[in-house]
Amino acid sequence: MSKVQVGIIMGSQSDLPIMAEAAKFLEEIDVAYELTIVSAHRTPGRMIEYAETARDRGIKVIIAGAGGAAHLPGMVASLTTLPVIGVPVRSSNSIDGWDSILSILQMPSGIPVATVALNGAKNAGILAASMVGAFDRELGDRLAAFKNSLKTKVEASAREIEQKGWRELLGE
Amino acid sequence: MSKVQVGIIMGSQSDLPIMAEAAKFLEEIDVAYELTIVSAHRTPGRMIEYAETARDRGIKVIIAGAGGAAHLPGMVASLTTLPVIGVPVRSSNSIDGWDSILSILQMPSGIPVATVALNGAKNAGILAASMVGAFDRELGDRLAAFKNSLKTKVEASAREIEQKGWRELLGE
Amino acid sequence: MSKVQVGIIMGSQSDLPIMAEAAKFLEEIDVAYELTIVSAHRTPGRMIEYAETARDRGIKVIIAGAGGAAHLPGMVASLTTLPVIGVPVRSSNSIDGWDSILSILQMPSGIPVATVALNGAKNAGILAASMVGAFDRELGDRLAAFKNSLKTKVEASAREIEQKGWRELLGE
Amino acid sequence: MSKVQVGIIMGSQSDLPIMAEAAKFLEEIDVAYELTIVSAHRTPGRMIEYAETARDRGIKVIIAGAGGAAHLPGMVASLTTLPVIGVPVRSSNSIDGWDSILSILQMPSGIPVATVALNGAKNAGILAASMVGAFDRELGDRLAAFKNSLKTKVEASAREIEQKGWRELLGE
Amino acid sequence: MSKVQVGIIMGSQSDLPIMAEAAKFLEEIDVAYELTIVSAHRTPGRMIEYAETARDRGIKVIIAGAGGAAHLPGMVASLTTLPVIGVPVRSSNSIDGWDSILSILQMPSGIPVATVALNGAKNAGILAASMVGAFDRELGDRLAAFKNSLKTKVEASAREIEQKGWRELLGE
Amino acid sequence: MSKVQVGIIMGSQSDLPIMAEAAKFLEEIDVAYELTIVSAHRTPGRMIEYAETARDRGIKVIIAGAGGAAHLPGMVASLTTLPVIGVPVRSSNSIDGWDSILSILQMPSGIPVATVALNGAKNAGILAASMVGAFDRELGDRLAAFKNSLKTKVEASAREIEQKGWRELLGE
Amino acid sequence: MSKVQVGIIMGSQSDLPIMAEAAKFLEEIDVAYELTIVSAHRTPGRMIEYAETARDRGIKVIIAGAGGAAHLPGMVASLTTLPVIGVPVRSSNSIDGWDSILSILQMPSGIPVATVALNGAKNAGILAASMVGAFDRELGDRLAAFKNSLKTKVEASAREIEQKGWRELLGE
Amino acid sequence: MSKVQVGIIMGSQSDLPIMAEAAKFLEEIDVAYELTIVSAHRTPGRMIEYAETARDRGIKVIIAGAGGAAHLPGMVASLTTLPVIGVPVRSSNSIDGWDSILSILQMPSGIPVATVALNGAKNAGILAASMVGAFDRELGDRLAAFKNSLKTKVEASAREIEQKGWRELLGE
Repeated sequence: MSKVQVGIIMGSQSDLPIMAEAAKFLEEIDVAYELTIVSAHRTPGRMIEYAETARDRGIKVIIAGAGGAAHLPGMVASLTTLPVIGVPVRSSNSIDGWDSILSILQMPSGIPVATVALNGAKNAGILAASMVGAFDRELGDRLAAFKNSLKTKVEASAREIEQKGWRELLGE
Repeated sequence: MSKVQVGIIMGSQSDLPIMAEAAKFLEEIDVAYELTIVSAHRTPGRMIEYAETARDRGIKVIIAGAGGAAHLPGMVASLTTLPVIGVPVRSSNSIDGWDSILSILQMPSGIPVATVALNGAKNAGILAASMVGAFDRELGDRLAAFKNSLKTKVEASAREIEQKGWRELLGE
Repeated sequence: MSKVQVGIIMGSQSDLPIMAEAAKFLEEIDVAYELTIVSAHRTPGRMIEYAETARDRGIKVIIAGAGGAAHLPGMVASLTTLPVIGVPVRSSNSIDGWDSILSILQMPSGIPVATVALNGAKNAGILAASMVGAFDRELGDRLAAFKNSLKTKVEASAREIEQKGWRELLGE
Repeated sequence: MSKVQVGIIMGSQSDLPIMAEAAKFLEEIDVAYELTIVSAHRTPGRMIEYAETARDRGIKVIIAGAGGAAHLPGMVASLTTLPVIGVPVRSSNSIDGWDSILSILQMPSGIPVATVALNGAKNAGILAASMVGAFDRELGDRLAAFKNSLKTKVEASAREIEQKGWRELLGE
Repeated sequence: MSKVQVGIIMGSQSDLPIMAEAAKFLEEIDVAYELTIVSAHRTPGRMIEYAETARDRGIKVIIAGAGGAAHLPGMVASLTTLPVIGVPVRSSNSIDGWDSILSILQMPSGIPVATVALNGAKNAGILAASMVGAFDRELGDRLAAFKNSLKTKVEASAREIEQKGWRELLGE
Repeated sequence: MSKVQVGIIMGSQSDLPIMAEAAKFLEEIDVAYELTIVSAHRTPGRMIEYAETARDRGIKVIIAGAGGAAHLPGMVASLTTLPVIGVPVRSSNSIDGWDSILSILQMPSGIPVATVALNGAKNAGILAASMVGAFDRELGDRLAAFKNSLKTKVEASAREIEQKGWRELLGE
Repeated sequence: MSKVQVGIIMGSQSDLPIMAEAAKFLEEIDVAYELTIVSAHRTPGRMIEYAETARDRGIKVIIAGAGGAAHLPGMVASLTTLPVIGVPVRSSNSIDGWDSILSILQMPSGIPVATVALNGAKNAGILAASMVGAFDRELGDRLAAFKNSLKTKVEASAREIEQKGWRELLGE
Repeated sequence: MSKVQVGIIMGSQSDLPIMAEAAKFLEEIDVAYELTIVSAHRTPGRMIEYAETARDRGIKVIIAGAGGAAHLPGMVASLTTLPVIGVPVRSSNSIDGWDSILSILQMPSGIPVATVALNGAKNAGILAASMVGAFDRELGDRLAAFKNSLKTKVEASAREIEQKGWRELLGE
């Protein structure tokens, strides 16, 4: 079995429906990952241990999702030299996601977090794969094939709309 | 000398011109405090030690100031049972202060931060004093006198404008 | 029966479903409180009397919740030396909570309000308990136990997701 | 001398450079006014007395300016049946004026404040005059003349730009 | 029958469910009004005629509601010397009401609009009544009675919650 | 059959329910159009070919709709000398439409996009027709008739509300 | 001399430094224009006459700039079938331009305004030229040359930075 | 000499003072980079060639900076399988940076951009180094040393403030 290269963590099990999209993509593109729950505010000790041991365990990139005053991605980034991808989650206590975004994105000089779109866990998975794929030609080629499949779907959709007309597609 | 009851911390020396206002007020109202620099992202170990020992050192309330993706107040709050007052600082890397405010204010359930206005370090000092003053009648009375002095100043200002007229005050 | 230490007030009965969370936590942690309705705009006289007598009645901290142009927390803070915790409520007439937050948080110099997250009444209860607990070792210890229970829950949740896998948890 | 019909109040002398524009317009249009300082947070008693006696003193409309968590206009409106015009001031502690606007504008049902633009004290003066002018034909006619003068100025400006060309006006 | 003193207009019949609240209040407080539809963008000629004749028809104040890029209140204000109250409507094409608010509130110097809260049509009715009531003692007294009824309701609500307890009120 | 003058494109079939409004209006006003799917991010080659050939194919104006980080309108504008109308779509991944608006509207100097309101595809169709209609008198006259029909509908709506009263219209 | 095809208007002479950029571009690309001042709020009659006669005077597109609660572009659009380009101006009374943008962009269904970026008057000129150029091959070709010159400048800039290095360009 | 691993591009030479911070850090940490100007809107062909050849030229990560409606990072990400780091630049035409942030961050599913803080080019450099350092132990160790130096500086700053006191540091 391949070695785990991506660690996916989130602050609460309530973030799982969003964050699972990262795991799904990594499975599709065949990158080994681990997934667990680590809370910056409720389990700071666990967070520190997770972050400080990740590099030596062979992890190449960490994906961290959180909502509201989302401190997990930034705190993990402060505790490792690995790249950390932050996923702002529009959780129930968030103000339309603005707090999630700003508290992940606006990190001070010295401690970056690679922030993706609100609820963008699938994109976090793709980004993690692209980081590994830059050093793994086969994975890079699988990513190129994935990118091509996006193009193919749009082209098929365009052909459908051009042939059937928009009224039929809308069921009018 | 009285025992230190308020701990003032900030993420960077660049926050000092703002955060010193808290110290100034505590001196005026005669509440003993300590002031130092603790960075959530650059000295996480120091932050943990500061927060975890504060209660046993006799601290009653911690004031923490930070800007941008400001994690210090919330992380300290996760590490102590003491009340933590957060001061959002409009630092140079902040987007008009919105990031500072939201990443301090919007803490998840279980870990509150008592947030004051943007750059509101003096108010943080007053709030800390009011927390101690609720259990210290003499300090409470000094706070009442402070409150009264605010009233007196406004009344004097009102008398001046009523007597001189606004044109004279504006130098027109 | 223990003496009332926390006063919970709100501008309207429609705020009760949110504000009751503060009361629930205080009951759990065994801090005596009182709860009633006081409107800054509709019962200014009642508000003044409530705020001006609170300290002498033995109250140590006031929790005030309001929405929209939320003046209750700030006005109460202007009328007492006790710490006032403000809960911005995302009421039906509020613009996504921004008005509630800003009109509670952005108090002028001299009159702080300890603001918590939008709809964060439970956190207001925890914060009030932490203020009292700073001067009451047994309450402080109960707060430490509460904090520990948060950690335990996250750890159990992490174990569950690691053992069962995220697909089973999501029911996939 | 004519009877005072408009009361202009503000929370702090620092608001005077903005608020004086209301007074200037009322002088130009010949409406008698009074101007003083009343702080909701620092002189609540003075505010209550001012608001509760205004109607009996013959005041027809109150203009109140404040910044940040601006409670003065709304609190005054809660204490009188007179119309209250609120001027959101972009004070030094304000977040680009958003807090000033929202804490004046978003009043709950039952207690309106007639809000004008940020720093719009001149418009507050015009609005106050229009309220009185609706019941005073001569003042109404002076307002119509004022409105006409605005038109005349724009027309002159248009003629100038059409005759001289924009390059000359810009000094190019 | 009493003479019409308040004109209520709106840009579209879809605004009626909101704007009818102004009419309801004016009926309750016994102020005669008229209500119709006038669109700045679709019937500019009708708007001009309405605004230019209002004063001579005896109208004392105009209430105008609109949403999105809401030009009706400001354009009417530019065409009359009467006070114009603007009601920002959170219509279906509005971005959470921000466009409605800003395009009504932020009028240029010379042309004020008395803006009330988002969807605040009832408050627009109260504000219109208060403008007329400043010159009509009986109406002013009815407004004072209305204000008093607000207080009475809050006091009753407070007594209920104090006697029954919040659990019973929440049905727990 | 008349020659295609307007090209309507969108980034994804999920934008069709919104974007079809443009097509509907163009049919009503009898302007020939084509409609298809072109994605800036998934089919950049297709986008380039579409934009670079549009002028020579006789297209006079392109309508492009997209949501989130919406790059299609701006990228197409960079690849053609034709006017490009951008429709910000409030797609499911958008933050209340703010990202859609700003990434279409705020184009750098040299590459304008004619931006319409959020989800304003019908207005995009009208705007496209007005551009063509400026050079086609008959179409211009049809647009004048359309504009007149808007007026007629408002006038009918006004008559209805004046005759029946608002209570009947609201079904009260 | 060529016939005037573009009308440039603005609400106030203070908008001229911004709006002149549209005129400058039209001169460069050799499109005849006229430029004057028309205020929606101070000269509504002049605005109506300007808008209603523009088409018959041969104008093909109108550029209208305004700031704050900017009603000029939308009102002009309601009075003509010509395309109207709106330029949101970040005027001194504007809240960072948000009011200018929203009150121009968010027009109701039926009355579009082609909005460009904040202070984007040059882009308004380019957009106007592209509308005319869609029907005037020579102008279209001049626009293509302009677009090409943008490319050439970037390429030269790229060569310079690649040859000299960024340190020399920054003067380090 | 070591092989170029990071490509730094920006839309305009005016972004250089910000973007040079990325280059400076990469020099300090000894990672080879290239830096040039590529504009999505003015040189789309150049952008495509740059992005499509980067992987084969041995580049491991691309840093792209842009402001306003910032399409460069997202368009480059659509054209390569390499990770792309986006730097939102608060350029002169940007609305406080919100447009820059949202048009880079909010990429659609399938095409991620690793977004850093506003003007956060130094953090982009650190993030790029961390991506390479995950696969290059020596670079990873240099990053760990860099992280340690941040800690050392904060500790020195803390010692200074504790020894000298804040008054001396502020020069009071």
